[in-house]
Amino acid sequence: MKAPIVTDTTLRDGSHAVSHSFTPEYVGTVVSRLAEAKVPVIEVSHGSGLGASTIQQGFSTHSEWLLIEQAVANKKDSKIASLFVPGLGTRPEILKAAEYGVEVLRIAVHCTEADVSLQYFEQAKKSGLDTVGFLMMSHTQPAEVLAKQAKLMESYGADCVYVVDSAGALVPESVRERVARLKDSLSINVGFHAHNNLGLAIGNTVAALEAGADQIDGTLRGLGAGAGNAQTEVLVAVLKKMKIETGINLTVLMDTAEEIVAPIFKYPSVIDRDNLATGYAGVYNSFLLHVREAAEKFKLNPVAIIEELGRRHAVAGQEDWILDVALELQQKELAQKELVK
Amino acid sequence: MKAPIVTDTTLRDGSHAVSHSFTPEYVGTVVSRLAEAKVPVIEVSHGSGLGASTIQQGFSTHSEWLLIEQAVANKKDSKIASLFVPGLGTRPEILKAAEYGVEVLRIAVHCTEADVSLQYFEQAKKSGLDTVGFLMMSHTQPAEVLAKQAKLMESYGADCVYVVDSAGALVPESVRERVARLKDSLSINVGFHAHNNLGLAIGNTVAALEAGADQIDGTLRGLGAGAGNAQTEVLVAVLKKMKIETGINLTVLMDTAEEIVAPIFKYPSVIDRDNLATGYAGVYNSFLLHVREAAEKFKLNPVAIIEELGRRHAVAGQEDWILDVALELQQKELAQKELVK
Repeated sequence: MKAPIVTDTTLRDGSHAVSHSFTPEYVGTVVSRLAEAKVPVIEVSHGSGLGASTIQQGFSTHSEWLLIEQAVANKKDSKIASLFVPGLGTRPEILKAAEYGVEVLRIAVHCTEADVSLQYFEQAKKSGLDTVGFLMMSHTQPAEVLAKQAKLMESYGADCVYVVDSAGALVPESVRERVARLKDSLSINVGFHAHNNLGLAIGNTVAALEAGADQIDGTLRGLGAGAGNAQTEVLVAVLKKMKIETGINLTVLMDTAEEIVAPIFKYPSVIDRDNLATGYAGVYNSFLLHVREAAEKFKLNPVAIIEELGRRHAVAGQEDWILDVALELQQKELAQKELVK
Repeated sequence: MKAPIVTDTTLRDGSHAVSHSFTPEYVGTVVSRLAEAKVPVIEVSHGSGLGASTIQQGFSTHSEWLLIEQAVANKKDSKIASLFVPGLGTRPEILKAAEYGVEVLRIAVHCTEADVSLQYFEQAKKSGLDTVGFLMMSHTQPAEVLAKQAKLMESYGADCVYVVDSAGALVPESVRERVARLKDSLSINVGFHAHNNLGLAIGNTVAALEAGADQIDGTLRGLGAGAGNAQTEVLVAVLKKMKIETGINLTVLMDTAEEIVAPIFKYPSVIDRDNLATGYAGVYNSFLLHVREAAEKFKLNPVAIIEELGRRHAVAGQEDWILDVALELQQKELAQKELVK
């Protein structure tokens, strides 16, 4: 098996877990350690991508341009990537990212909406960036639908398309099926991005590699939305066990995860009831903090809100549904109490 | 894929994580919830098996017979199992276990020492118990060696033999290879027991099922030695996602994990540097608490001790090596400081 390209997204997907509060100094430190370890791609931006610091997605404490500036200053031979969600990000952010020294743009859409990414792929290529297409919530669609969407992205100029398990809802078999289908359909790289709600972040990433994935993602210590991501340092250790040599320094990663990243966790990345329910129901991981707030406000069990969002097939961008659902569930509960009286 | 038999070992392997301090009341509560959820087998004993409450293995706060008594009183349709390590446990414990209502004896040996288990399998069968052979540290031997050892256990009367990944050191491919070889060689059930040091407790268990495993283990919330075990509630959720129906009630398991087990954790089951080093070096997980104590006493980095134990291929029962190694490493460090002077 050939070595995959590893992207560390601690400073992007991990941003959700710290309410987008990374400081420029912190970003500089982590990037410098990741670069020292020779991680080839390092993603830095608001958790929901460039320009996503908003009331709905959560405001960043520091401008992401200051964070990206620090990242580029410390990146050595690594490339800096940023996430970009069409609508949250707009064309000017792509131009600015290129100016600041970002080299990879990862354009993320719900996995049936590749068509909204056309103009952004075109702009990114015009600006000289490597491009990655991110098919979010890939568990909601069968392999053939994903392959068609990926094919669109390839035609727009994507250099790679990822199967993204945003809800941590896939099992190894369903990962292998999806990745293999994309590999069959495309002539560009295929990637896989995991979450750990079903305890399968590492197992599914291995399954993706077995099916031919060329690129994989992780975050140090698993810092990330919900149950967290595949731990970059664990992935590298597992690759070594599998005799796949990435050239990444495991010791530097382990020390950075332990000394620099572990101390900033607000809560440990364990698979608790809410996280498991999220993966099982197939709900977008970054919804969870909002769900917990709503549950507290309306005195509900978060699991009930998660299950209802799952039944409604909520997708990224529908965060305002969380309050609607919570309100409805509360009213239902009150109505039932009235009936009992 | 057919449904595997699930054994929950929260009240045995989880015992390591709470320094063998379970109370009879706690055991009664957990067994009653697991029985309500219809988990078919529930393991209860000292973490290192019957009779292992000793200075080297750690003393239990409460006699395991009181714990087993409570377990049997609350088991409903489930079976109670106990672990048994030859040498730590002796024949009288088997007789007593049968008297107390234990129905399954899981006899654990280092994976090259099946021959020491003969008399215990014979006694267990004579006492009317179901028997399981546990091949510990299975990552240290190739599939064909394990198959020969398993074959011996089958000839002694084992009803099932487990590939036990005591160090959390296997990857999916190496699990599939080992389980498939045992399936080919034996006419009895084959099981798999996972630890999470490489983030693969669930992924490896799925790999074991793909290779034909008939029995699997978990603990609620992953409570267990080192980085913990496969989480029983997560396993059941994953099986449901894979359309494998075990008949186990997921909601009851999730609630029990969250409400009864999560509160007793002394430290969260995350994959920190020490746990990852343990899996990577292939060191027995229950060594870690002792390693951390020695590291503190001798002012060493636990990772250095773990790596040296890995180089020496330390196996269960060699806990006294930990202090030897720590002392040697300290002396080396002191000698080097002298040289620098």
